[in-house]
Amino acid sequence: MATDRIRNKALHSKIVSAGQAASLVRDGMVVGMSGFTRAGDVKAVPAAMAERARTDPFKITLITGASLGHDMDQKLVEAGVTARRMPFQVDTTLRKAINAGEVKFIDQHLSETVEQLRARQLPPVDCAISEAIAIREDGGIVPTTSVGNNTTLALQAKQVIVEINTSVSLALEGLHDIYTPGDRPNRGPIPVIAPDNRIGLPYIPVSPDKIAAIVFNDLPDSPSNNLPADEETAAIAEHLIDFFKAEVKAGRMPHTLNPIQVGIGTIANAVVSGLKNSPFEHMVMYSEVLQDSTFELFDAGKMDFASCCSITLGKECGERVWSNFERYKDKLVMRPQEISNHPEIIRRLGIVTINTALEFDIYGNVNSTHVNGTHMMNGIGGSGDFTRNAYMSVFVTKSIAKGGAISSVVPMVPHVDHNEHDVDILVTDIGLADLRSLAPRERAPVIIKNCVHPDFRDQLTDYFERACQTRGGQTPHILEEAFSWHAKAIKDGTMHL
Amino acid sequence: MATDRIRNKALHSKIVSAGQAASLVRDGMVVGMSGFTRAGDVKAVPAAMAERARTDPFKITLITGASLGHDMDQKLVEAGVTARRMPFQVDTTLRKAINAGEVKFIDQHLSETVEQLRARQLPPVDCAISEAIAIREDGGIVPTTSVGNNTTLALQAKQVIVEINTSVSLALEGLHDIYTPGDRPNRGPIPVIAPDNRIGLPYIPVSPDKIAAIVFNDLPDSPSNNLPADEETAAIAEHLIDFFKAEVKAGRMPHTLNPIQVGIGTIANAVVSGLKNSPFEHMVMYSEVLQDSTFELFDAGKMDFASCCSITLGKECGERVWSNFERYKDKLVMRPQEISNHPEIIRRLGIVTINTALEFDIYGNVNSTHVNGTHMMNGIGGSGDFTRNAYMSVFVTKSIAKGGAISSVVPMVPHVDHNEHDVDILVTDIGLADLRSLAPRERAPVIIKNCVHPDFRDQLTDYFERACQTRGGQTPHILEEAFSWHAKAIKDGTMHL
Repeated sequence: MATDRIRNKALHSKIVSAGQAASLVRDGMVVGMSGFTRAGDVKAVPAAMAERARTDPFKITLITGASLGHDMDQKLVEAGVTARRMPFQVDTTLRKAINAGEVKFIDQHLSETVEQLRARQLPPVDCAISEAIAIREDGGIVPTTSVGNNTTLALQAKQVIVEINTSVSLALEGLHDIYTPGDRPNRGPIPVIAPDNRIGLPYIPVSPDKIAAIVFNDLPDSPSNNLPADEETAAIAEHLIDFFKAEVKAGRMPHTLNPIQVGIGTIANAVVSGLKNSPFEHMVMYSEVLQDSTFELFDAGKMDFASCCSITLGKECGERVWSNFERYKDKLVMRPQEISNHPEIIRRLGIVTINTALEFDIYGNVNSTHVNGTHMMNGIGGSGDFTRNAYMSVFVTKSIAKGGAISSVVPMVPHVDHNEHDVDILVTDIGLADLRSLAPRERAPVIIKNCVHPDFRDQLTDYFERACQTRGGQTPHILEEAFSWHAKAIKDGTMHL
Repeated sequence: MATDRIRNKALHSKIVSAGQAASLVRDGMVVGMSGFTRAGDVKAVPAAMAERARTDPFKITLITGASLGHDMDQKLVEAGVTARRMPFQVDTTLRKAINAGEVKFIDQHLSETVEQLRARQLPPVDCAISEAIAIREDGGIVPTTSVGNNTTLALQAKQVIVEINTSVSLALEGLHDIYTPGDRPNRGPIPVIAPDNRIGLPYIPVSPDKIAAIVFNDLPDSPSNNLPADEETAAIAEHLIDFFKAEVKAGRMPHTLNPIQVGIGTIANAVVSGLKNSPFEHMVMYSEVLQDSTFELFDAGKMDFASCCSITLGKECGERVWSNFERYKDKLVMRPQEISNHPEIIRRLGIVTINTALEFDIYGNVNSTHVNGTHMMNGIGGSGDFTRNAYMSVFVTKSIAKGGAISSVVPMVPHVDHNEHDVDILVTDIGLADLRSLAPRERAPVIIKNCVHPDFRDQLTDYFERACQTRGGQTPHILEEAFSWHAKAIKDGTMHL
């Protein structure tokens, strides 16, 4: 086993227990860990860190690709280890600590963390802990089910701990395409001109000298917890497919559609899954996380290729895909997240982006992150990287939440992640609003008519009309009332005034 | 004269009066005009259009590069010609019509208009009217003092009207670098890897067949109306220069600084002007509009090169520069605005961006456009193109306005053009806040201490502390009070509660 997985014999002496490896992490360190949306996260060493902190308290700044699996953020927070966290998370316990101000959370565009590290605009990484299928003879690290920020974290770190996950098949070797932009001021173009281009190495080129410890684990990734499609997500998918059909008919998109990006989560996954029943063929993705829906499209013969930085699957789909990986391998490439999410490539390829909104307002501003403008859900993730350079940006959400007490379309969003300049298409189960070429005062009636649940339509029309009459402007608002729906929700649990 | 300026003899027959050319523009047309921040705008034909509309009413959609000179937006609005306008403006009369809902204004990132035209996400351009120094024998149009959107407007339009401005020296020929990205899905990288790279043609390649009319004018551009530096702008410049010095000392920027972009307006111009008194040398700009300050830095021997899409100068500076253009020509390149503002190049070059905020909030969200969240000032312009892909984004503003009645730092901005994810450095006359690597709850005290005018500091501290105590969250806010400062300003003209 060790020979297959650690091909540099001198490195065999670095094999230690998780506890021994964890002891390399000291108080005050900046620690980079692999892991992106539950995929390819390190599992043994952080668990040992949390264990150790119970008797030997210490705090770190934790940088990952995105969210972790195995409740690792919970374990680290409960053990008091996480002082600062970036750039994304989805954990309930960590979320509570963030919103209580106990953990400092720096919510970042996922393509930018490594740029800031490289430019020394963030403190330097002391230690990187990276999951791998194998270590090559030259020290090169072959990642597992995500690449995320692993490359730059390992290259920047003073020392690297590798966790070899023996539950991940060596068949994944060759999936990854590791490339980092050159140094400024002499940085050249990134030579991806089609989603399936390979431009780098199939491993992270780390000198064997920098590998301080090697640990084995055999834990599969935590499966995704997407909910199955329901009536509302099916309606959203249908509206979007009808719209795409019209775009193809108008000659604005090819029959294959433009390359698509899809955000993580139940709604976006269901929308893509719905493309199985569309007339489009030979589709391609240039995306961040691939979920079950991508593999459904592969299996249905609808999709030709998908580029990503992470693959996060449900239990059943994961078992099917990972045990038949050769069937999918030549349809996939997995890149660092700064490349999967790079503005240069997104603009060049002309990507149609589909992301989930928490809520949006009558002019098309989107809140993806902060409940009632204050409480962090997960983070902006890659939605800004994609949206702000998209060929066409789509946001999807159910029209109501909490059994109809909350409207997802509001007078004004109390936190703006994506503003009106960057949002083209809004879709709810009610319908679709095409905002392209519309001025704000034209957008509002279209959004209200097409996207708002009937139970909130009159209330929102009333706000908009009074705002036009009493205040006017490019984006009419009554500031004293703009958040009255949210204030009511905080007080009474409902946005019905 | 005509031979020098119209080198294709067959085109001499197209020379007509402005009135005759204006008659080609019909009701309902989409009209593209040259002009970017008062530079290189067409002067004769739109004036004739406004004149004609008094007796022969008609309406158009008007697309430009950015703002126009010679009160042209005022004339067109007063004549009832402008039904829809994009992507930027600064005219008082037009602003009133926009805020009254009489003219529909689509406020866009300046790099994106032509992408949307090319993708047919905006209605097609019927007629382009373009200012030129000269028309080449092959029909190629040599622009004047701006390139803006001229290239794609002319290439997309069914017919082109050229205004030859004989007041602009033929010495400008060779200044321009005209390049458009290839068609998707086979678009390649844009090969600018340094600000001084030339990648295109020195003219807009238009077929002579498409030139429907040629008109002469001899009006110089309207001079910029920047105010001179004052005590506050000098203080802002000083804070920023001190910060840059520290960045250079820390090894995060070279002694030449990174390439810089600077937004239009009095404050940004004064800040750049202040760099004359800095220790930095061999500076370069990769920017949008060049103002007087760039030429001051050239004259002071501090700046080596500047890339732009427009040059807008004050009266005196303009006279000096345009009559001695050979002295500056090899230090300059002028590109289409989608290239000067292209996210691909901005990210690649690692640009430090300096733009003016109308106001910002305690977490670093910036409002650049909407007074009290409703009333449009000018438009987002290129600030989003640059900020969202910057190496480091800086926003500058005076700490107070209206004689101290209004604070430029507020609890929550009522319109977000640049959100906390994209804003690194904030500077007022009071001081500078470095937000990099800070979580929102850490940002607020730094902003309040460093940027807020003392007259508003206690009031803002009080808001932040109560928001933390009563609501909490990642970005604590009291929604019922978040806009109370603005509401007070609307009612009583002051933000003092």
